Amino acid sequence: MSDNPSSLAPITWRDDRLFLLDQRRLPRTVEELQCTSLEQATAAIRDLVVRGAPAIGITAAYAVCLGIQQQEQDGRYDLEHALDLLAAARPTAVNLRWAVEQQRAVMHEAGSDRLQACLDNARLIQRRDVEDNLAMGANGAGLIKAGSRVLTHCNAGALATAGYGTALGVVRAAWADGKLERVYASETRPWQQGLRLTAWELAHDGIEVSVVVEGAIASLMQQQKIDWVIVGADRICANGDVINKVGTCNLAILAQHFGVSMMVAAPSSTIDLATASGQEVAIEERDPREILADCYPDSQQVSAWNPVFDVTPAALISAIVSERGVISSPDKNKMMAFFNPE
Amino acid sequence: MSDNPSSLAPITWRDDRLFLLDQRRLPRTVEELQCTSLEQATAAIRDLVVRGAPAIGITAAYAVCLGIQQQEQDGRYDLEHALDLLAAARPTAVNLRWAVEQQRAVMHEAGSDRLQACLDNARLIQRRDVEDNLAMGANGAGLIKAGSRVLTHCNAGALATAGYGTALGVVRAAWADGKLERVYASETRPWQQGLRLTAWELAHDGIEVSVVVEGAIASLMQQQKIDWVIVGADRICANGDVINKVGTCNLAILAQHFGVSMMVAAPSSTIDLATASGQEVAIEERDPREILADCYPDSQQVSAWNPVFDVTPAALISAIVSERGVISSPDKNKMMAFFNPE
Repeated sequence: MSDNPSSLAPITWRDDRLFLLDQRRLPRTVEELQCTSLEQATAAIRDLVVRGAPAIGITAAYAVCLGIQQQEQDGRYDLEHALDLLAAARPTAVNLRWAVEQQRAVMHEAGSDRLQACLDNARLIQRRDVEDNLAMGANGAGLIKAGSRVLTHCNAGALATAGYGTALGVVRAAWADGKLERVYASETRPWQQGLRLTAWELAHDGIEVSVVVEGAIASLMQQQKIDWVIVGADRICANGDVINKVGTCNLAILAQHFGVSMMVAAPSSTIDLATASGQEVAIEERDPREILADCYPDSQQVSAWNPVFDVTPAALISAIVSERGVISSPDKNKMMAFFNPE
Repeated sequence: MSDNPSSLAPITWRDDRLFLLDQRRLPRTVEELQCTSLEQATAAIRDLVVRGAPAIGITAAYAVCLGIQQQEQDGRYDLEHALDLLAAARPTAVNLRWAVEQQRAVMHEAGSDRLQACLDNARLIQRRDVEDNLAMGANGAGLIKAGSRVLTHCNAGALATAGYGTALGVVRAAWADGKLERVYASETRPWQQGLRLTAWELAHDGIEVSVVVEGAIASLMQQQKIDWVIVGADRICANGDVINKVGTCNLAILAQHFGVSMMVAAPSSTIDLATASGQEVAIEERDPREILADCYPDSQQVSAWNPVFDVTPAALISAIVSERGVISSPDKNKMMAFFNPE
């Protein structure tokens, strides 16, 4: 907890177990889900107990430790297969596979100390994530003028990370600097992460927030009530295209139309130089029932299309902010120069 | 029912009473609410039992008949005051005040036959609405090419009118002509009229529909899955600005960005030449709890902004379709020419 400046602990390892704040039940119920097996952690990632690219990565890193414990108790346990299933629990976030592969390498290198080595590495990933978020927050807040009104989408906060948050890290830093006049959170259907998680964690930190439905965002901007849109990212491509919660591209187009600035705040581990552009990314589609609920159980006529992420072209983004600095008006050349400075 | 080609009867007068299909409970419960007093009808309009500008107007016309019955039973009943409250039940729809004032004039002119005169007029408004919608449907479908994919927002269908619908009248006509490859309905938060009403009434007529959350619309258009956005209107200003369900302006901006056509289908009674532009229109804001639900009952930090409508500038609209014809790329001069032909 002392590592976490937002005082929220979404992911905790204690007593040889992984505890996850169950984000499906917030804000009404604040309850931890206890994972004693890698499979439980895989299910928790798949079922959105924990979500947000950095938080998924950290959860996966600890899940590997659970798997090692299982194999030490039962030599027949097929850890490599379990790791493959873990890495595939959700298809879009680059951090998930990154964390699993990093732990696999640590595990194979460490030999008999592999549990301790993987635990140390998971804790390192978690601690560095908070440090990165603090640096990112300062970098992003540096772009924001006093008296600004900001809009954020989904939840790229303490709950989506090890703590402090990416987009909400920037919001926290700018709020602490006294620069923010107002924070708006878009509801973010169908899971309502903006309503349930972003509003909850900002209120938890004493930051006032107004929730709006996605449909009201053009009105907000038309009335000149927004200066910055600030979002996180699940993956950033080599050309600066951003994969993030569905609805992000809508916001970017509206922002461009109304002359509002668009900031993407994400750790540099989110940047995937192996993916040339957003067109190459497979977008996860989830169960239509997340939208249809119990409205049409027997209808052949009513279906739903439920993509989880969208692709925001780099041309619509004012700035990508990471722990290492700011890339303004990102494109392929600026992305390359940022990662390969002379 | 015979007047209603979509086989849905949202508003029915029988046995000296007004029956309203309770749209808050659809699609799970199909149930009529019975109104025996003008005040019950006013409450039904305010509480969204019935919604959609034309349906609100027809309900109000019958509500006047209920008020006349009440005064005939009790001479002290203050009908004029009740009519003022009825006309103010919702602030934005021009049809509501239009219907009340028309009935007030009919009532004062008819003398002792006022109940029958007002009933006849209410039935005339209702029947003409269906005729207008059929004409509008044909006019709108004439703009649509075979193989088109359309997106509609909120519910501008049989449920929002006397039957057949405005935007959904165009969809029904184009579907009957075999021109539509696919119909998408945006969920339309916070009341989910797209999910609950539009999907329900299209499925009821055997038209296949896919529901999407508002956040997924940029993705739909980016993937070239939409040719036309077709919406209704609560009011159309003299310069062609359109007041419609919040989220409409978002769609218009996205449509322009992706080169998708934007159609507004509404009866000519929706056009209010006395309102110069959208800037003059007071937009109804409803209770924040419609968005917050029971998430934050005691929080001082979490609020919500809940406008019901938005203003879509005429410049973003490809065509306004009414029962009288089509106004392409509307502006003040074209609107004037349409209503004052030489």
